[in-house]
Amino acid sequence: MAPSAHPSSSPLLTSKEEEKYADVKWDELEFALVPTDYMYVAKYKQGESFSEGEIVPYGDISISPCAGILNYGQGLFEGLKAYRTEDGRITLFRPDENALRMQTGADRLCMTPPSPDQFVEAVKQTVLANNKWVPPPGKGALYIRPLLIGTGAILGVASAPEYTFLIYTSPVGNYHKASSGLNLKVDDKHRRAHSGGTGGVKSCTNYSPVVKSLIEAKSSVFSDVLFLDAATGKNIEEISTCNIFILKGNIVSTPPTSGTILPGITRKSISELARDIGYQIQERNVSVDELLEAEEVFCTGTAMVLKAVETVTFHDKKIKYKTGEEALSTKLHLMLTNIQTGVVEDHKGWMVDISS
Amino acid sequence: MAPSAHPSSSPLLTSKEEEKYADVKWDELEFALVPTDYMYVAKYKQGESFSEGEIVPYGDISISPCAGILNYGQGLFEGLKAYRTEDGRITLFRPDENALRMQTGADRLCMTPPSPDQFVEAVKQTVLANNKWVPPPGKGALYIRPLLIGTGAILGVASAPEYTFLIYTSPVGNYHKASSGLNLKVDDKHRRAHSGGTGGVKSCTNYSPVVKSLIEAKSSVFSDVLFLDAATGKNIEEISTCNIFILKGNIVSTPPTSGTILPGITRKSISELARDIGYQIQERNVSVDELLEAEEVFCTGTAMVLKAVETVTFHDKKIKYKTGEEALSTKLHLMLTNIQTGVVEDHKGWMVDISS
Ligand SMILES: Cc1ncc(COP(=O)(O)O)c(C=O)c1O
Ligand SMILES: Cc1ncc(COP(=O)(O)O)c(C=O)c1O
Repeated sequence: MAPSAHPSSSPLLTSKEEEKYADVKWDELEFALVPTDYMYVAKYKQGESFSEGEIVPYGDISISPCAGILNYGQGLFEGLKAYRTEDGRITLFRPDENALRMQTGADRLCMTPPSPDQFVEAVKQTVLANNKWVPPPGKGALYIRPLLIGTGAILGVASAPEYTFLIYTSPVGNYHKASSGLNLKVDDKHRRAHSGGTGGVKSCTNYSPVVKSLIEAKSSVFSDVLFLDAATGKNIEEISTCNIFILKGNIVSTPPTSGTILPGITRKSISELARDIGYQIQERNVSVDELLEAEEVFCTGTAMVLKAVETVTFHDKKIKYKTGEEALSTKLHLMLTNIQTGVVEDHKGWMVDISS
Repeated sequence: MAPSAHPSSSPLLTSKEEEKYADVKWDELEFALVPTDYMYVAKYKQGESFSEGEIVPYGDISISPCAGILNYGQGLFEGLKAYRTEDGRITLFRPDENALRMQTGADRLCMTPPSPDQFVEAVKQTVLANNKWVPPPGKGALYIRPLLIGTGAILGVASAPEYTFLIYTSPVGNYHKASSGLNLKVDDKHRRAHSGGTGGVKSCTNYSPVVKSLIEAKSSVFSDVLFLDAATGKNIEEISTCNIFILKGNIVSTPPTSGTILPGITRKSISELARDIGYQIQERNVSVDELLEAEEVFCTGTAMVLKAVETVTFHDKKIKYKTGEEALSTKLHLMLTNIQTGVVEDHKGWMVDISS
């Protein structure tokens, strides 16, 4: 070992190894908050354009008790991941898609969003500022959480006079602890979204309402909840934070994005990969009956990437699906994670290298 | 005039008159934020009970960017009013009802609420601390806004590990500027709530989704929007922040509180008053067709109390309703405001005197 210019015994200086990585037990990462060093903050005031934004130390923000987000739920979020590749690069998965989705959401909630360019640039800056927190290859990812929230004070129901665009990050491991498939419960009591509502955008208002279902399901050993459409209660929609696919024969089906489910970026990517290997993809209403007769079922989302569903329980029926080595879900999971982690070359133009 | 011990010319001392009232142009009050001196804050940490809470200077709060309210919309609010009576008392209108409604809402959003006693006591303390801001009799009211929000940091969708119960106030005048009746637009595109959702509680998640409808309606000279039920699109539900009633003959009808509309406290009170003067009250589904054939239509809510609807527009139909001196809405408005402002004696036990 070459002698170091900065002896590691100095309390003020860190060794090369310590410089590269934050002090995290990488093997024990879950999907839980591990605060990192920096966050990004930009502000928009009515009549002006978005401020340039800056990287500041991660910490609490100061907000009016009368802010739109605290009183009327005027807030959107996004979620994406940064990966560290074996050859030492740091990459983002399709950040432009998240930027565009925030535009749609902002329109629905009557907010002015940062431009897609500012969004992607801000994500890059935030990840680079926190680069010590991007897990080593294979150990997880840096989860990135952009928020667009109404921080201006407003008494009556209206759009707030000021918005804050903020990005924080957290290194994460796997979303669901179990390495086996998901055990889903079909919720036939609570609905998640209705047509003409906000189910099609990543509005904060879609999430607290599902916590009750989630708690009920998890208390009786389910991993998550599958919601049905509010209009008929006959068709499947999505899970609390991911999209759903079913496989029967050569056909992979997934509910259409017609305003009540989130247009998932993983959903879109997995559809493309399945098509690439010869499956037919149908975006259409999928009834519970069809779900119960499927060969495979799987879920997609940024947090979990792709997860096979082992069982679905609907009232007193419990159906078991194919999972494991031979399953399409396993194949698609590998195809996507290989691209995301840089194990195979990205011919799709999905990965954005931000380390160079 | 008796000589004052504190000459009003002293910059540090205020005259009696200045002491009693804050420096507000009482005749120009609208329904807009006028910050007052103090707010109330109490915290709940998972596994503990609610802290006692304290009155602190009104101002920004410090909150984690990862808080449940900012990311997942875990928040409830309430709205009630304090009045100053001609004989100098300060009273609250049915604060126990708001306390109970917050309990129901907290259960739906999986939060621990303050006890009803703590709620009412906190409201009293907040109003008394801000008593200079309670408008003179007849000039409006002190609007009180209790919030219960998930302030604990949480990365995955779940209930936050800490909640904050906060109360702030603002003197307010009339909610709708026009002194004549409302001109409502029936929104046949956006829906407000679905069965199995959170429409029946005062969740922040019900409000930002309606801003788009409101902006669209207000931009074409409507005062507010009337939403239809998400299931069939045939029945009327409520306005963005108030309940609706229709009158035909001797029958006053209002949609039932079956989970998709807020059980308004003004709604309940007005129903009781209408019954007292011989009207029959029906809580049942009311179709758009019936609405269009009603003799009178009116709305109720804390902010506006009771407001006659002058016109309803549904697609290209515009219906005009009876308003003015002879209307039932005028009579009911007077009955309720007379009780609220202490002009007539309260035989209902609705008013809580907090000045003694
Ligand atoms: C409700 C919901 N559906 C689906 C998804 C999946 O979307 P994506 O693949 O873009 O992460 C998410 C977010 O992760 C979600 O919150
Ligand atoms: C959606 C909605 N409906 C109705 C009401 C009326 O309720 P209350 O009379 O308790 O103020 C409100 C609140 O004020 C509301 O926000």
